Amino acid sequence: MRYKVIVAYDGHRYAGFQKQINSQGIQTVIEEALKKVIHQPAAITAAGRTDAGVHALGQVFHFDGPDNISEYGYYMALNTLLPKDIRIQSVQKVPDHFHARFSAISKHYEYVITTERDNPFTDAYKTYVYRPMDLEKMRQAAKILEGTHDFTSFCNAQIDPRKPRVKTIHSIDVLEEGKDIRLVFKGNGFLRYQVRMMSAALIAVSTGQIDADELRRILEAKDKHACRFNAPAKGLYLVAVGYPDELPDLHLDRDKAMGKKEPEMESES
Amino acid sequence: MRYKVIVAYDGHRYAGFQKQINSQGIQTVIEEALKKVIHQPAAITAAGRTDAGVHALGQVFHFDGPDNISEYGYYMALNTLLPKDIRIQSVQKVPDHFHARFSAISKHYEYVITTERDNPFTDAYKTYVYRPMDLEKMRQAAKILEGTHDFTSFCNAQIDPRKPRVKTIHSIDVLEEGKDIRLVFKGNGFLRYQVRMMSAALIAVSTGQIDADELRRILEAKDKHACRFNAPAKGLYLVAVGYPDELPDLHLDRDKAMGKKEPEMESES
Repeated sequence: MRYKVIVAYDGHRYAGFQKQINSQGIQTVIEEALKKVIHQPAAITAAGRTDAGVHALGQVFHFDGPDNISEYGYYMALNTLLPKDIRIQSVQKVPDHFHARFSAISKHYEYVITTERDNPFTDAYKTYVYRPMDLEKMRQAAKILEGTHDFTSFCNAQIDPRKPRVKTIHSIDVLEEGKDIRLVFKGNGFLRYQVRMMSAALIAVSTGQIDADELRRILEAKDKHACRFNAPAKGLYLVAVGYPDELPDLHLDRDKAMGKKEPEMESES
Repeated sequence: MRYKVIVAYDGHRYAGFQKQINSQGIQTVIEEALKKVIHQPAAITAAGRTDAGVHALGQVFHFDGPDNISEYGYYMALNTLLPKDIRIQSVQKVPDHFHARFSAISKHYEYVITTERDNPFTDAYKTYVYRPMDLEKMRQAAKILEGTHDFTSFCNAQIDPRKPRVKTIHSIDVLEEGKDIRLVFKGNGFLRYQVRMMSAALIAVSTGQIDADELRRILEAKDKHACRFNAPAKGLYLVAVGYPDELPDLHLDRDKAMGKKEPEMESES
């Protein structure tokens, strides 16, 4: 039986979702826990990798496991075995053709900036910007990035030249919450580093380091050396992964069991 | 010259404010940093100790140091040297008779409870309560603890029998914030473990484990074995320490320097 799992994690202790040489990846930690639950070698497939220090509220993975354990049984067993900074949110039976990565049709990321100095609790969770930011400029610049574009300029990675770099961003919202600014990116998919590089470029526009025309030139260059800005991993959150309607996004059987209903997902930090 | 310093810290990596055998105390970390700033042995005196895992938004300490370094100079130098989970909030010159502990006339603590399961970011910062809580019952029970009482029953510690255990609690407020409940304690001082034991007893009333009469009997017993409840350190925050008016509570010369004004202190977590 195939299971779809939503997992949230605090990425700051980990080398990223995928294991690295000499450092622990979140995937390995989950596979070790799953192995203990199903008493056989376990492999999980995630919607996407997150880099070292990046957080998730709604990462999705699938695995194939015995169906003599209920969805709630998997949920409870995994959360009992996993460390407190990796928390399963839900476990749901899905058809065999469901694939966490290939079935995904949308991604929702958020980038969290703070203007608050000297907070001892947030260093691993928000990016501090000390220069004054013009959020109206940031919002206008975000419009340039919305829509369907070749985002090569915002992908400073060793990428497979055969892979498409055209992606569609449905919306970029700039939300002000007290001393924090939250950039909300929704799209059909994002290249590696794309959200962090776009966030850094939008910060650069808001602080006046570059103007909107320069941002447009960077985008149109389609050159992975065109954008010199990149924002720290610690501000980035994978909030949700979207799938077609025939796969309802969240089926919390623990909520049914507990007779309560929660919103699908809440932003954190 | 004597300096008054306000410091905030994330206590979860530390053995408490005071050093313990074989584990690092926050005091030692600050003294090591201060030693590098003043190039001589450094000693600080805090308003009070916080236990292992307890957090602070407004702990206060004083030290005597050379006045060829400005208040802003101390602030910048210390925050440069200190780890990111210990952050100086302000440094202020004070008269020589100021004493962080003996001059204090009030303390403000908060205890943070959450009803949210499976949040990977909050394990070290909030206490999870899974039983339904009746906050109205909690508010009524809190009235029993307000005022001037002998709080021996809420002090499960090796305390000096000569020390007074009569304290005055000015107010206990029960605030609901989304899935969190924040207990706000303001008083002239608190015994060791008092806030955590009172918080646990109030939780017990709210979940129906004991009733208000039982809480009253515990208080009136004046027996350190009377209260069997204690809440985890991780939910406790020392928010502020109050001093007489002639010592203005906060003088942020860095704010003057930056031309902005901030509220004195904000609750965190």
